[in-house]
Amino acid sequence: MSASHNQFDKKSEAWSARFSEPVSELVKRYTASVFFETRLAPFDIQGSLAHAEMLSHVGVISQQDYTDIQKGMAVILEEVQQGHFDWQLDLEDVHLNIEKRLVELIGDAGKRLHTGRSRNDQVATDIRLWLRTEIDTSAALLLQLRKALAQLALVHHATIMPGFTHLQVAQPVTFGHHLLAYAEMFGRDYQRLLDCRKRVNQLPLGAAALAGTSYPIDRERVAKTLHFDGVCRNSLDAVSDRDFAIEFCAAVSLVMTHISRLSEELILWMSARVGFITLADRFCTGSSIMPQKKNPDVPELARGKTGRVNGNLIGLLTLMKGQPLAYNKDNQEDKEGLFDSADTLRDTLTIFVDMIAGIKVNADNMRTAALQGFSTATDLADYLVKKGLPFRDAHETVALAVKECEQKGIDLADLSLAELKAFNSAIEEDIFKVLTLEGSVSSRHHIGGTAPERVKAEAERILAE
Amino acid sequence: MSASHNQFDKKSEAWSARFSEPVSELVKRYTASVFFETRLAPFDIQGSLAHAEMLSHVGVISQQDYTDIQKGMAVILEEVQQGHFDWQLDLEDVHLNIEKRLVELIGDAGKRLHTGRSRNDQVATDIRLWLRTEIDTSAALLLQLRKALAQLALVHHATIMPGFTHLQVAQPVTFGHHLLAYAEMFGRDYQRLLDCRKRVNQLPLGAAALAGTSYPIDRERVAKTLHFDGVCRNSLDAVSDRDFAIEFCAAVSLVMTHISRLSEELILWMSARVGFITLADRFCTGSSIMPQKKNPDVPELARGKTGRVNGNLIGLLTLMKGQPLAYNKDNQEDKEGLFDSADTLRDTLTIFVDMIAGIKVNADNMRTAALQGFSTATDLADYLVKKGLPFRDAHETVALAVKECEQKGIDLADLSLAELKAFNSAIEEDIFKVLTLEGSVSSRHHIGGTAPERVKAEAERILAE
Amino acid sequence: MSASHNQFDKKSEAWSARFSEPVSELVKRYTASVFFETRLAPFDIQGSLAHAEMLSHVGVISQQDYTDIQKGMAVILEEVQQGHFDWQLDLEDVHLNIEKRLVELIGDAGKRLHTGRSRNDQVATDIRLWLRTEIDTSAALLLQLRKALAQLALVHHATIMPGFTHLQVAQPVTFGHHLLAYAEMFGRDYQRLLDCRKRVNQLPLGAAALAGTSYPIDRERVAKTLHFDGVCRNSLDAVSDRDFAIEFCAAVSLVMTHISRLSEELILWMSARVGFITLADRFCTGSSIMPQKKNPDVPELARGKTGRVNGNLIGLLTLMKGQPLAYNKDNQEDKEGLFDSADTLRDTLTIFVDMIAGIKVNADNMRTAALQGFSTATDLADYLVKKGLPFRDAHETVALAVKECEQKGIDLADLSLAELKAFNSAIEEDIFKVLTLEGSVSSRHHIGGTAPERVKAEAERILAE
Amino acid sequence: MSASHNQFDKKSEAWSARFSEPVSELVKRYTASVFFETRLAPFDIQGSLAHAEMLSHVGVISQQDYTDIQKGMAVILEEVQQGHFDWQLDLEDVHLNIEKRLVELIGDAGKRLHTGRSRNDQVATDIRLWLRTEIDTSAALLLQLRKALAQLALVHHATIMPGFTHLQVAQPVTFGHHLLAYAEMFGRDYQRLLDCRKRVNQLPLGAAALAGTSYPIDRERVAKTLHFDGVCRNSLDAVSDRDFAIEFCAAVSLVMTHISRLSEELILWMSARVGFITLADRFCTGSSIMPQKKNPDVPELARGKTGRVNGNLIGLLTLMKGQPLAYNKDNQEDKEGLFDSADTLRDTLTIFVDMIAGIKVNADNMRTAALQGFSTATDLADYLVKKGLPFRDAHETVALAVKECEQKGIDLADLSLAELKAFNSAIEEDIFKVLTLEGSVSSRHHIGGTAPERVKAEAERILAE
Repeated sequence: MSASHNQFDKKSEAWSARFSEPVSELVKRYTASVFFETRLAPFDIQGSLAHAEMLSHVGVISQQDYTDIQKGMAVILEEVQQGHFDWQLDLEDVHLNIEKRLVELIGDAGKRLHTGRSRNDQVATDIRLWLRTEIDTSAALLLQLRKALAQLALVHHATIMPGFTHLQVAQPVTFGHHLLAYAEMFGRDYQRLLDCRKRVNQLPLGAAALAGTSYPIDRERVAKTLHFDGVCRNSLDAVSDRDFAIEFCAAVSLVMTHISRLSEELILWMSARVGFITLADRFCTGSSIMPQKKNPDVPELARGKTGRVNGNLIGLLTLMKGQPLAYNKDNQEDKEGLFDSADTLRDTLTIFVDMIAGIKVNADNMRTAALQGFSTATDLADYLVKKGLPFRDAHETVALAVKECEQKGIDLADLSLAELKAFNSAIEEDIFKVLTLEGSVSSRHHIGGTAPERVKAEAERILAE
Repeated sequence: MSASHNQFDKKSEAWSARFSEPVSELVKRYTASVFFETRLAPFDIQGSLAHAEMLSHVGVISQQDYTDIQKGMAVILEEVQQGHFDWQLDLEDVHLNIEKRLVELIGDAGKRLHTGRSRNDQVATDIRLWLRTEIDTSAALLLQLRKALAQLALVHHATIMPGFTHLQVAQPVTFGHHLLAYAEMFGRDYQRLLDCRKRVNQLPLGAAALAGTSYPIDRERVAKTLHFDGVCRNSLDAVSDRDFAIEFCAAVSLVMTHISRLSEELILWMSARVGFITLADRFCTGSSIMPQKKNPDVPELARGKTGRVNGNLIGLLTLMKGQPLAYNKDNQEDKEGLFDSADTLRDTLTIFVDMIAGIKVNADNMRTAALQGFSTATDLADYLVKKGLPFRDAHETVALAVKECEQKGIDLADLSLAELKAFNSAIEEDIFKVLTLEGSVSSRHHIGGTAPERVKAEAERILAE
Repeated sequence: MSASHNQFDKKSEAWSARFSEPVSELVKRYTASVFFETRLAPFDIQGSLAHAEMLSHVGVISQQDYTDIQKGMAVILEEVQQGHFDWQLDLEDVHLNIEKRLVELIGDAGKRLHTGRSRNDQVATDIRLWLRTEIDTSAALLLQLRKALAQLALVHHATIMPGFTHLQVAQPVTFGHHLLAYAEMFGRDYQRLLDCRKRVNQLPLGAAALAGTSYPIDRERVAKTLHFDGVCRNSLDAVSDRDFAIEFCAAVSLVMTHISRLSEELILWMSARVGFITLADRFCTGSSIMPQKKNPDVPELARGKTGRVNGNLIGLLTLMKGQPLAYNKDNQEDKEGLFDSADTLRDTLTIFVDMIAGIKVNADNMRTAALQGFSTATDLADYLVKKGLPFRDAHETVALAVKECEQKGIDLADLSLAELKAFNSAIEEDIFKVLTLEGSVSSRHHIGGTAPERVKAEAERILAE
Repeated sequence: MSASHNQFDKKSEAWSARFSEPVSELVKRYTASVFFETRLAPFDIQGSLAHAEMLSHVGVISQQDYTDIQKGMAVILEEVQQGHFDWQLDLEDVHLNIEKRLVELIGDAGKRLHTGRSRNDQVATDIRLWLRTEIDTSAALLLQLRKALAQLALVHHATIMPGFTHLQVAQPVTFGHHLLAYAEMFGRDYQRLLDCRKRVNQLPLGAAALAGTSYPIDRERVAKTLHFDGVCRNSLDAVSDRDFAIEFCAAVSLVMTHISRLSEELILWMSARVGFITLADRFCTGSSIMPQKKNPDVPELARGKTGRVNGNLIGLLTLMKGQPLAYNKDNQEDKEGLFDSADTLRDTLTIFVDMIAGIKVNADNMRTAALQGFSTATDLADYLVKKGLPFRDAHETVALAVKECEQKGIDLADLSLAELKAFNSAIEEDIFKVLTLEGSVSSRHHIGGTAPERVKAEAERILAE
């Protein structure tokens, strides 16, 4: 058996019979993937076991071979999980490292494992198994984040803050309503990940190098064992397709875009001039030179991480552009960006679930801010329309009233009835209810509106999901 | 009524009561969107009519107002479609241009149309209506392209060509099998567009500027009229969400990535040294200096267009990064890239449907190429494994045989039985059936394999969809 | 001469002798560039004249031919500039449109113009000539913007505002100092454009289609006529190189990144809770629903335009990835993104020069903000270090003092000497000068520091450039 | 001294006096940079030593302190280089890890080192020092690659191959000429790196956190010690500027774009149907399933790596978009992408220098290919023009001749003089010299043309640089 072992001692020897010089050390390092893909090892083993089970079922290998492979793989999985596995650069990738160790452990049965498959369909299977797990984890985190937002929204369903457009005070909204906007975004992200999962969860194994195999394999049996929804229906496509990775990275870019928007707002809200919220200390850091600082490091860093996930997306798209079929070595570049996007997503969501729960609200500052900037001007316009003015004329009237208030340094609600009537004689005493913050938000009680009862109902609906 | 008209003559006057100086001409041009968004006009009108119908239904405007609005909009739609509408920069965008014209045509009823809405939710509605139509068109084209590929694959289900990995000859496949790999890609693209459509097809109207409206609107009625699947459930999100545009652009980038791969192959296949196919003359151009040239312009240009759609995707992602809620003027930048990706997709797919159908195949060149490069070496290895050798040992044996053939300048099938037996005594006369191209492809007859009968069945399945 | 005309009537006929079917209308539209590249026409004419002058100088065409070409081109240039030129889709691009018109005007001399060149080197020359002009325009605007910032900085060299890190108040700076940070950025941008210009300003003409020409051309003469710095030294590279376009787009992305940062700050500074500045009304717009709004539209839109220029950059990089030499039709996709980035840059800079000059400063709000957040805490720490404490210990002491102030709701300067001494006995009466805003900024008077005299000197230095 | 040590034992304690809860483990990991930035350690030490030397020179610290710091840093550098330094997550970054160790080694002098600086200007200095070294290394490699290409070009200055446009045979060129096109590209890349270096090589140290410092520092002395070309002239800009990193990444994207084009060609040239070259075995790998394969792994992987560097560029641009001044935690995200682009560049260039030198050329295949596709048709057209035909008419004539040759299956040179005369009576016996490959290339002997003597001269010029 020792001769067989040696065959693998250096991976390059796997094809050495035809090559006249060894690969240089730098080239080895440049082309090897083993050190950045060890996370695939458990999935590689899982896929190999399903493949071996099928091979024994259809009679390509013996039942004894399968039993030996199971035993060998159990040892290897343990070594990997304990961190004792001796990954070798010379064996280039995770697959050859594991296979070589398997042959060491169980001999010829290990050599028979690779029957009817190739590294091309093997690696595609590994990545899909791994990514499926990542999607399930991050999808669950998205639901948790959605609920954390809904929970805080429930508490603050009636806490009034200024709603902004163009970062200018526009109309009063409730803080709960504002938070639920993000719950909507993360809800869409969740659906998007589920849609992506359908296309991830297709089995490429059986495509072999590119054309399929002449062994009597049963791909649907393997798919069932590994809980895939179906099998890839074309072998050339199966080994060269990386759509699923790109679609996942695009979905991550959208999640992180939402995170960047939320982070921007958390940072603004926590700045001295705004003072709407405080983040718990455990998400902040101080300064090495300014002892008074409490910096919102986590949202800043999360905002910055939008860059890396967008970069990973472009990296993968660029990678696949113009590649002829079927497999090319370029595709080895698919992993690091994908791994990085998955890690960034998981870590960021985990932290945000906790961080949202730890937000402290300064409702007084929010209310004070909502009283700046004539936030109920629209309500005055709507009032006039209900009294019979065409909308555009009402708008013009309010603009004149605002101009006068600005010159006097007062709010619309501070004008007397007489002063208001001077702008339009249809204005009556009931205008003052309309011009309050509470009156403004309460009046928007349709689906999607900011009325406190509506916000409460929405938050409860999400929490009950 | 003339005073009312004047209010709109310059859009900036819509808020002029509070402003002390006019917007400069360059700023007007810089900030205006009207000239690149006229394609939204029919959708703007469609949305306005549904809004007006609802307003009259709930009693905010009279039935007569609604009737007038219908009449006015019919005139405007005709003007737009005939190219007679007088778009004005001073009115900044499509919405104000149409509204001003409506007021000209029907007076105060026109002014009442904008009740209970804002340009923020209006434009979001317009884009979604427009994009839904684009998705439906391009999704249908994807199915057509898929069928064009299947049709050609059916004709060539048994035409043998070399299958490549690393652009090196690997194993024989059939040309039909190769084409069906692309049918798989475009099939996924179709599913992806349908998934995207679900999220596009939600109604933002009713969100008004950001907080909802105090009018007793019925958003679900409007959604039903406009065939939306549902309503956006948070007003702040409704006016600031551009996820759907980004998701669409990401889906387009994937389609165009597939197009770029197919184009790369068409160009390679049509180059002199390869000579596998000829494209119909109507997709090629000549040279202004080299009269002998017939250049595959269309696939080259299509390959190049991957750049612009990837650029549009990154443009939109960059745009949304870190934007605080709710609407900011930045969002006006959402349209040009989105329009461009949609146009590129539609035009490219339309041309490719026709171009695929016009491919002429040079089967002799394909076969000759498949006989280069020892493409049945894997079959020899598999043969040896079936005779009892472990896979890795069989591989080694074949490598030695290939090396000898290379030195002799012959193919594996040209070795005598005696020569073959020198490598492994288990080799028998039946090896020569295995080493033919036909024997090789026929043996891969599982789901996804390249066996002609399998390819035929797959092509027929797609054509029957 | 009429036969000659017909040869061009449809561009596809230029090679029609070998083609058996015409290009379809959609393909024509898909592959034509004429409608988006008419801006190249004056540069195409300029390049043709220099080429013709050289051809006549070396004797390839007659002096009379050259004179005729000059006359014909003068007519065409006039037609183009007056908007009367009849651009035709059938003639595909600007070059063939102009050449066909030239032949119409002057006959066979026009046909001889294309001797010794190809559209491949012709278009590369046109783009470089056009881009050189754009660089010169935008580089001048960058200097103007730099001076506009310096001018405002000079006025506000001593106006104190809070300096932020992490959007938290950190240390007092002057507004002038803050503005000069942007002057530095735009100064680097200017240098970067000049460096890019060196590589733009090389002549590709003479490379012909890809290999050079057999005519006895004098490329250096043409380079001199057109004020190029040199000639491209390899013909294959000359026709396929688009580095200069990518380098320019990358430089534009950096400028727009700076613009996005400045815009973000202008928007923040103009928001109600901050209130540091007001933009002139001509750069703002109102709201169609909220009459009180004054929205900083220009900086918002400019911030958003970062997306499109980054998209253009990625578009070009994706375009060139993996293209084999020499010219491929993909390259036609180089123009729209490049044009768009150049336009965006020029328009944005033009507006910002004016907008910066129109900023009104609310110095009271700035000062009030600087007094929040213990902005002189670092000064206290430095004071302690100068009294002999190691820096890290001083930092710890100040942190304790800040904590106490926070609990009491006061600033460091509000502590009594006794209270201060309780933290460290080395503190003396002179501490109170250190803790003022003026004391803090004045003490940072090294190169690059925020001391008013230093800011004044820097502003004057830039204005004197 | 033990109390002092403890202050650093957990980095978060550096500001703990004001914080009420510790940072969670996940947040620590999320926000820490130490593990990906250890490569900065030698540069951090270099910068600290220059800072300390200046502090002692101006009298802020004693000569003894400086001597102690030198001794301590020598120990630390040794520990880092030997891999013995104990990097701790709790100390967050490289700076605090080193400073804490310094205090352990030398006590209070170590605490005084941080006087007059901040981590904000410190990290900016470290990155610039590191990047300057990387630029110098990669710039030298670019020159080596340029010379490797020129060396091979010199050998093959007269080896004829087909020049392609649209991947169709266009005109004959020499292989040396083709290689020199890449020498031009890498020559521009070299110049671009040098231009970038000017902007990298400016000293930010002295900006402290953002505003400068009140210590009497001498920034120009530090700049001189560290061989910087100058000092950053605005402290806010100095700590927030990452232009230099983006400019470098953009330059790397261009280099890798060139590498991707060269790689595409190497892969094409090595494919069975083309067969122009062979790469040395040490840059190729075999297949785990197809023993006959020799795959051009290195160029494929290099082509794929275009994706990651473009991704890094977009990552950085996205990161900086819309960031307010001065330092934000987002900026910590600047490093990994930058490091990755620098590593990718250096490794790729190193390998390509060696790989180019190892290319074996199959001149027969090149020549055979050049004889396909009527590559001298342009020469016939030029011949006719020289005989007096207008260019456009000559083009038409040649097109007809090519059409006839295609139908007969022969080359232009195979037509008899009589047959040629039938197309145009001006054709004489001397046409046959024009229609040879050698005649064609030799005639293009102007600057940039493909004539062998010209190619030889260019190659020699580059080798003599």
